[in-house]
Amino acid sequence: MSKVHNFSAGPCILPQEVMQQASEALINFNDLNLSLIEISHRSKDFVAVMEEAIDLVKELLEVPEGYSVLFLQGGASLGFYMSAINLMKAGGSGAYVNTGSWSTKAIKEAKKLGGVQVLGSSEDKNFTYIPKGYTVPSEVDFLHLTSNNTIYGTQFKAFPESPVPVICDMSSDIFSRKVNVADFGMIYAGAQKNMGPAGTTVYIVKDELLGHTGRDIPSMLDLAIHRGKDSMFNTPPVFAVYVSMLTLRWLKGQGGVGAIEQQNQAKADLLYSEVDRNPLFKGTAAIEDRSNMNATFVLTNEDLAETFNQLVASANISGIKGHRSVGGFRASMYNALPLDSVQVLVDVMKHLEQQFG
Amino acid sequence: MSKVHNFSAGPCILPQEVMQQASEALINFNDLNLSLIEISHRSKDFVAVMEEAIDLVKELLEVPEGYSVLFLQGGASLGFYMSAINLMKAGGSGAYVNTGSWSTKAIKEAKKLGGVQVLGSSEDKNFTYIPKGYTVPSEVDFLHLTSNNTIYGTQFKAFPESPVPVICDMSSDIFSRKVNVADFGMIYAGAQKNMGPAGTTVYIVKDELLGHTGRDIPSMLDLAIHRGKDSMFNTPPVFAVYVSMLTLRWLKGQGGVGAIEQQNQAKADLLYSEVDRNPLFKGTAAIEDRSNMNATFVLTNEDLAETFNQLVASANISGIKGHRSVGGFRASMYNALPLDSVQVLVDVMKHLEQQFG
Repeated sequence: MSKVHNFSAGPCILPQEVMQQASEALINFNDLNLSLIEISHRSKDFVAVMEEAIDLVKELLEVPEGYSVLFLQGGASLGFYMSAINLMKAGGSGAYVNTGSWSTKAIKEAKKLGGVQVLGSSEDKNFTYIPKGYTVPSEVDFLHLTSNNTIYGTQFKAFPESPVPVICDMSSDIFSRKVNVADFGMIYAGAQKNMGPAGTTVYIVKDELLGHTGRDIPSMLDLAIHRGKDSMFNTPPVFAVYVSMLTLRWLKGQGGVGAIEQQNQAKADLLYSEVDRNPLFKGTAAIEDRSNMNATFVLTNEDLAETFNQLVASANISGIKGHRSVGGFRASMYNALPLDSVQVLVDVMKHLEQQFG
Repeated sequence: MSKVHNFSAGPCILPQEVMQQASEALINFNDLNLSLIEISHRSKDFVAVMEEAIDLVKELLEVPEGYSVLFLQGGASLGFYMSAINLMKAGGSGAYVNTGSWSTKAIKEAKKLGGVQVLGSSEDKNFTYIPKGYTVPSEVDFLHLTSNNTIYGTQFKAFPESPVPVICDMSSDIFSRKVNVADFGMIYAGAQKNMGPAGTTVYIVKDELLGHTGRDIPSMLDLAIHRGKDSMFNTPPVFAVYVSMLTLRWLKGQGGVGAIEQQNQAKADLLYSEVDRNPLFKGTAAIEDRSNMNATFVLTNEDLAETFNQLVASANISGIKGHRSVGGFRASMYNALPLDSVQVLVDVMKHLEQQFG
C-alpha cells in the first residue's frame, strides 16, 4: 500500500521504527519470551524502561537539578485539576491566560479549588491570537498557560515574565522546540502528540513547590506521593510508557530537541508560505502567534471544498479536517511527520490553484 | 524458545492470540495502513473499538438495563477515591470491609471525603480470611468491598446482604466467575488481570446512583460526565482499550464467563489439592476463603526454598514469588493461564517431595 501522510491532530503520527519495535515487544520483550504487557511492572526489565524514559526526558529537555519527572495517567484533562490542587494553597488562587478550549477547561477545574484570575483572553476573536500586555500579580499561587492550542493553531512564541511559579500545559508542543525548564514551576503534557501514544502524561515539577498547600490531596493526585514512589505508586500504564521511551530514544537519535525544532520550523515555513501565497487559502491565526504544530487555514472560496477534499484524499493525505469549532482545515505537523508529507500537501494546494485559481 | 508458565500477579498473562493481534494492529490497523496508536480516537475505526469493548462487558457480565459501562484511566488506585466521591454525599459516610492492602488504601482515600465505618477487618490474622457476621448499617451511603485480595490470596465466595448500594473493587477477579451485577451499585476494576493490559479501568455503575452527592466533583473524576461522553470526555487510553476488547472477544470465544469459571475452578482445585496433600507445603489463607485467582502457600521447611526455586526456574515457571508482606509463594491463575501450566507447577511440587519429603 502507498504511504499515508498523517496530519492527525492527536493521537498522531509516531516514528515508523517505534511502531516496529513496539510491535515486536508485544510478542517477545527483551528476549524474555514474554510480552511487554504480561510482565510485572516491578520486574527489573520494566523498571529499566521507566528509568530510561525519565532519564531521556531529563536529557532532552535539559531538566535542571531540583526537578522531578513523573509518568502518570489521566491526560492533560486530569492535569488541569491536578496541577492546581498541587500548587494552589487552601484559600489561595491561580492566574490563567485563556487561549482556547484547553485553557477554558483548566480554568473550570481550578475554580473548583479556589480563586481564579483570568489575566487575558482571546475569546473575543475565537482564540485566533495569544493575549499579551498583562501583568502577572504576585499574590496568586501560580500562573497557568497552555503553550500551544491545537484547535485554533496558536502558540506562545515567548512566555511572559512571572513573579510566581508558571505551570504550563505543553501537551501539544513538548519536545518540539527548546524551552528553558527553569522558567517553569511545573510542566505537564499528555503523551499523544510528540511523546508517545495516548495513555500516559508526563509531569516535570520543581520539587520545592510541592507539599505546601495545606490540602489533604487524594493520593493519586498528589505529585509528592508519585515522586516518592518513582512513578510506581500504582501500576503504571506500561505500554504507553514503553512507547514513549522508544519515541524519546528516536528523538535523541534525530539529534535531540534543537535538531527537531529546525525540522519543525522548515515544515511550518513550507506550509505557511503556501497558505500566504496561494490566493485560494487563508490562515486563521494571527501571523505572529501561528503554531508550528497545528496550521489552521480555510479556503477563500468554500465552493472548492469538495474538490480540495478529493485531491487531498487522492494524495493519501489523512486528518486535515479542521476542528468543528473552527471549521476549515488543520494540518498538524508533529515531530514524526516528514517534510515530504508537507510537500505533498503543498503540491495539492498548488494543483488546486492551477485548476481553479 | 520453550514456553514460559507465567504466574505473575499482574500485569499478567494474556491470551497469545491477543498479543498477536495487538502486535499486528500496531503496524497496520483495520487495513488503514496506519498504526492503531496514530489514528484519532474520534475516528470511526476507534469509536467502533470502544463500542465493542463496552458491549462485550455488558454481554459477558449480563449487565442489566440502567447500568453504564465506562473505560477510564487511573487504575483501581484512583478508583478508591473516585468510587467514594461519586456516591458519598457531602457530610455522608461509607462502610468498608477491610480485607487487605487494597481495602486499606480505599479506606484511606474515603476518609479524605467523609466518615468511614469499618464493619469488619481481618488485619488481626494478616488478612488471611474474609470477615463475616457483621450487619451493614442503613444510614451509610454505600458498602465498599474488595472481591479478591491478590496479596493474601483470599476471595469473597458470597457477598453480604446490604441495605445500601454495594461498591466492589473487582480488579483481580472480574470476568473470572459469574456475578450478579444487579447486586452492586458500582463495580470497578483495573484491566491488568483478566481484562487487558495496564492503563485502563472499567467502571460499571447504576445510573440512578450518580449525581446526588451535592459535591462539585472534578470533571475527570465525575462518572456522570464520563457517561455523558461515552468514555470519550478526553482522549482514552486507546491501546489499553483495544487490547481489552480483544481479550473480551477471546473470552467470549472460550464460552464466556461461565465456561472460564469452570476452567478456573479446575486450575484452583488442582493446585490447592497438591498444597493440601504435599507435606512440604502449606496454604496461608483460610480454606473457605481461598482465592481461585491467587493461591498463596509456604514451604513447611524453609531450608528447601533455594532448591524449590531452582526447580521452578528449570521448569520455566515465572512469577510465583510471594508478595513481600506475606512471603512464601503466590501462584496467580488468571483466565489466560492454561491448566497445563498449573500441572507443571504441581509436578515440580511433587518432584520436591520425592527428593526431600
